[in-house]
Amino acid sequence: MTNEMVFSELTPVAFAERAAKVFPDRLAVVDGGLRYSYAELWQRVQALAGVLTEYVRPGDRVAVLAPNTHVLLEAHYGVPLAGAVLVALNTRLSPAETAYILDHSGASVVIVDADCREALTEALKHSTVRPTVIDSGGPRDEYESLVTGATAQATAVTDERSLLSINYTSGTTGRPKGVMYHHRGAYLQALAMAYHAKLDTSSRYLWTLPMFHTNGWCFPWAVTAAGAVHHCLRKVDPAQIWRAIHEDGVSHFCAAPTVLAMLAEDPAAAVPAPRPVQVFVGGAPPSPALLAKTDRLGIHTRHLYGLTETFGPAVVCEWQPEWHALSPQSRAPLVARQGIANIVAEPLRVVDARGADVPADASTLGEILLRGNNLMLGYYRDDEATAAAATADGWFRSGDLGVMHPDGYVELRDRAKDVIVSGGENITSVEVENALAEHPAVLDAAVVAMPHPKWGEVPVAYVTLRTDASIEEAELIAFVRERIARFKAPHRVIFGVLPKTSTGKIQKDLLRGRAVHPPLDRPRRR
Amino acid sequence: MTNEMVFSELTPVAFAERAAKVFPDRLAVVDGGLRYSYAELWQRVQALAGVLTEYVRPGDRVAVLAPNTHVLLEAHYGVPLAGAVLVALNTRLSPAETAYILDHSGASVVIVDADCREALTEALKHSTVRPTVIDSGGPRDEYESLVTGATAQATAVTDERSLLSINYTSGTTGRPKGVMYHHRGAYLQALAMAYHAKLDTSSRYLWTLPMFHTNGWCFPWAVTAAGAVHHCLRKVDPAQIWRAIHEDGVSHFCAAPTVLAMLAEDPAAAVPAPRPVQVFVGGAPPSPALLAKTDRLGIHTRHLYGLTETFGPAVVCEWQPEWHALSPQSRAPLVARQGIANIVAEPLRVVDARGADVPADASTLGEILLRGNNLMLGYYRDDEATAAAATADGWFRSGDLGVMHPDGYVELRDRAKDVIVSGGENITSVEVENALAEHPAVLDAAVVAMPHPKWGEVPVAYVTLRTDASIEEAELIAFVRERIARFKAPHRVIFGVLPKTSTGKIQKDLLRGRAVHPPLDRPRRR
Repeated sequence: MTNEMVFSELTPVAFAERAAKVFPDRLAVVDGGLRYSYAELWQRVQALAGVLTEYVRPGDRVAVLAPNTHVLLEAHYGVPLAGAVLVALNTRLSPAETAYILDHSGASVVIVDADCREALTEALKHSTVRPTVIDSGGPRDEYESLVTGATAQATAVTDERSLLSINYTSGTTGRPKGVMYHHRGAYLQALAMAYHAKLDTSSRYLWTLPMFHTNGWCFPWAVTAAGAVHHCLRKVDPAQIWRAIHEDGVSHFCAAPTVLAMLAEDPAAAVPAPRPVQVFVGGAPPSPALLAKTDRLGIHTRHLYGLTETFGPAVVCEWQPEWHALSPQSRAPLVARQGIANIVAEPLRVVDARGADVPADASTLGEILLRGNNLMLGYYRDDEATAAAATADGWFRSGDLGVMHPDGYVELRDRAKDVIVSGGENITSVEVENALAEHPAVLDAAVVAMPHPKWGEVPVAYVTLRTDASIEEAELIAFVRERIARFKAPHRVIFGVLPKTSTGKIQKDLLRGRAVHPPLDRPRRR
Repeated sequence: MTNEMVFSELTPVAFAERAAKVFPDRLAVVDGGLRYSYAELWQRVQALAGVLTEYVRPGDRVAVLAPNTHVLLEAHYGVPLAGAVLVALNTRLSPAETAYILDHSGASVVIVDADCREALTEALKHSTVRPTVIDSGGPRDEYESLVTGATAQATAVTDERSLLSINYTSGTTGRPKGVMYHHRGAYLQALAMAYHAKLDTSSRYLWTLPMFHTNGWCFPWAVTAAGAVHHCLRKVDPAQIWRAIHEDGVSHFCAAPTVLAMLAEDPAAAVPAPRPVQVFVGGAPPSPALLAKTDRLGIHTRHLYGLTETFGPAVVCEWQPEWHALSPQSRAPLVARQGIANIVAEPLRVVDARGADVPADASTLGEILLRGNNLMLGYYRDDEATAAAATADGWFRSGDLGVMHPDGYVELRDRAKDVIVSGGENITSVEVENALAEHPAVLDAAVVAMPHPKWGEVPVAYVTLRTDASIEEAELIAFVRERIARFKAPHRVIFGVLPKTSTGKIQKDLLRGRAVHPPLDRPRRR
């Protein structure tokens, strides 16, 4: 027997080839009025590869600037089939930020959606590279013309540990870093997502999570592996999401808690989902109050946790059958935990400052470390940052703080940098936020540190109120004090809209330093 | 970053380590009165590895002769953790056959269940090797004493493409061949099984399928990966299976169609399953009549196909949502097909005698070829057979004949050797068997070729009737002639019990040559 018979390189691109053969006539993609099958997807992505090989050599980077369209989905197959490396660009960056990424990745080609064309033109004014631009959408759809006329191409993956894509971190602090994905990791992570989400041919996946974020947590490949439907969505709009749930039979999507909060608030929520919807929730822990609300709407959440560096969710809050018997109140804190290593991930560790595993006592705080096939190759063109990301004994440092529960589930307590150190005591912002979220008037809350002349730091809360709701600062502070230790309650509450990244994460860095503490001559009891 | 951080070797043994960390207190194993958790399973298998390292060097073979007990399950982890290679022995072989395998594999150690001790003693009289024997079960449970006192050991897998186990084919013709499994293939196949069976922490898997057969299709690893319960079963007894379904909450098992036929016939079938049971059916195509019966019992079948050489099911009959709307009559032939490449398998091919893919027209017969990560390394100590198993261009030849349907599903028509060539026409035994199975008096049927002076070969049927049913040979032949082409109907029907392998496969080789055609002076119309 030849080695080729026994082993094939692990690559998520293979899922599209398999789907074309085993699900040829199944619906693959819905994008507005466009609908096509898995046989057509495979034909189209090979044609895209044919187009790209005119412009790129093996290993060259191909950037895409587009919302969640069929074009960005196709690029997840067509770019590697051309032997090139995918760089999916965040559509909400400033021109200067986009230019930085184009230059840093050295993109040879940019495929751009008509809605993003102006932003790209602006970005190219700031950039050094001069990529070939392929316009997609709009009246003159260059992408479509090229793909229609192209000769099919399919470059084989000869090393599963080679570079598949570069995902730039959102970069709330400092320059964005280019996280390098390999074929093997994306393949295994896609399998894990298909397994945990129980995707199959009856599933319809709604593209709420941006594909430019962590390659859409590998769902561009997982949904195809399962022969399910990719339901594209240009904009995270609650009314459109509800329409897709009510009318199009959507069964799965991924979202940050803020998206779920918007859904629960939307007038369309008056009619629950006609078929159970499974939502993978990431980006931030959903509050118990939110979980209770979505359950009633037929939207069943599973909490996940991961980083761009771990191909998205390395950790899933796997459901335990015994939880069915619990009251919603007892169950909520269990399902709001981050959970356990996913089925392909190595069990994660929570370690103290000396690198020793903390006890599984649900209270000793430590940093979360990860390792395994679902870890990045490193940061592109940044050996220093790559080296700094690992411990001396070879574990990736997440920078996140958590505790290990006795049942093996990890609970994130905070980003290391989000912990508020007040009078020598650690206050995790999440516990204060959860207490705020229990108030019926509160839609969204973020808690950050504010300098304090006596305590060093104290918590300050930024709060968005529900439509038509109102509450006074003092009343809300009193509400929190009834729920958690007094010294953890915010010293100030500032009402307004919270700044968010494209993926719905609250940008705490923008909030820090906005508030200053009132002078000490207005004493507060702790 | 170090390479170790980014990549870990794929090995199914890792699923036990992960389960011990992420599901420490979940029930792992039930074996009669014995029950233990995943933390205990991991502790026990490391102890077993510690025991074995006293007797073996890396790469040595450790054989196990046992029914489906916790001991055989533990060996699926403990043997590789000792750096050794698992040889799970078929408990129904003759002493001479067992001796052949012990000698051929060069086993250093045999772990033997008390129920198999006599058989082993007999076998060792025929064998050349003198392995260390570890007795398990019985009044003096040596295995248990050793494991209890042992120091934990866990040899790391340094090459995922290395040898994990050797599975000897059942060898209905010629000597059994030793199929070599690698860690990578078993890992991926276990993931595929967990995915397709939708195993999770709420699942309870009943061990009807022998673990010595194709390493239990990789379920020893898949069930652990999912954190489900292994429910051991010493004997395939319909009453015991029904008890496990009715009383113990069994949700999944694997079986040959004959096991399902026995279940449907059992008096306990009067009460359907209290919770839906998902059964993976392999070994032979289930007849549409049988599928209709099991559905009514709450036993939902999915048909699979594979060989020992492909780590078991490389092909699954994945359910299509549109099939819900079909009548049971229209649906039955669809779900009785073998199906599509599983989620980790490369799409299989069906090729004609010249090696060209047959059209996907559901009628052109060809040989089924397979390739990929779920293919064996080769046959142990048999380079000639290994080389003969592959085509010139590197595909594994299954020896099975099938057709490709337009929807990408493969349907097996027969083993190449089971096709009956009559007057130059091919008759597949399966189509004659399916026609026989439609008769209400028929419990089981096998059709083989019988030499014929005029036609070369003609079909002869061996039939087991349902309890209390009766039918004449001529009447049954007439029944078949109403359903399929006259020349395909059996020329003789012989009633009695069918010889079967330990996995429930009918041993057609034993039936061939039993029947001879009546002399030609009793002419028959074709």
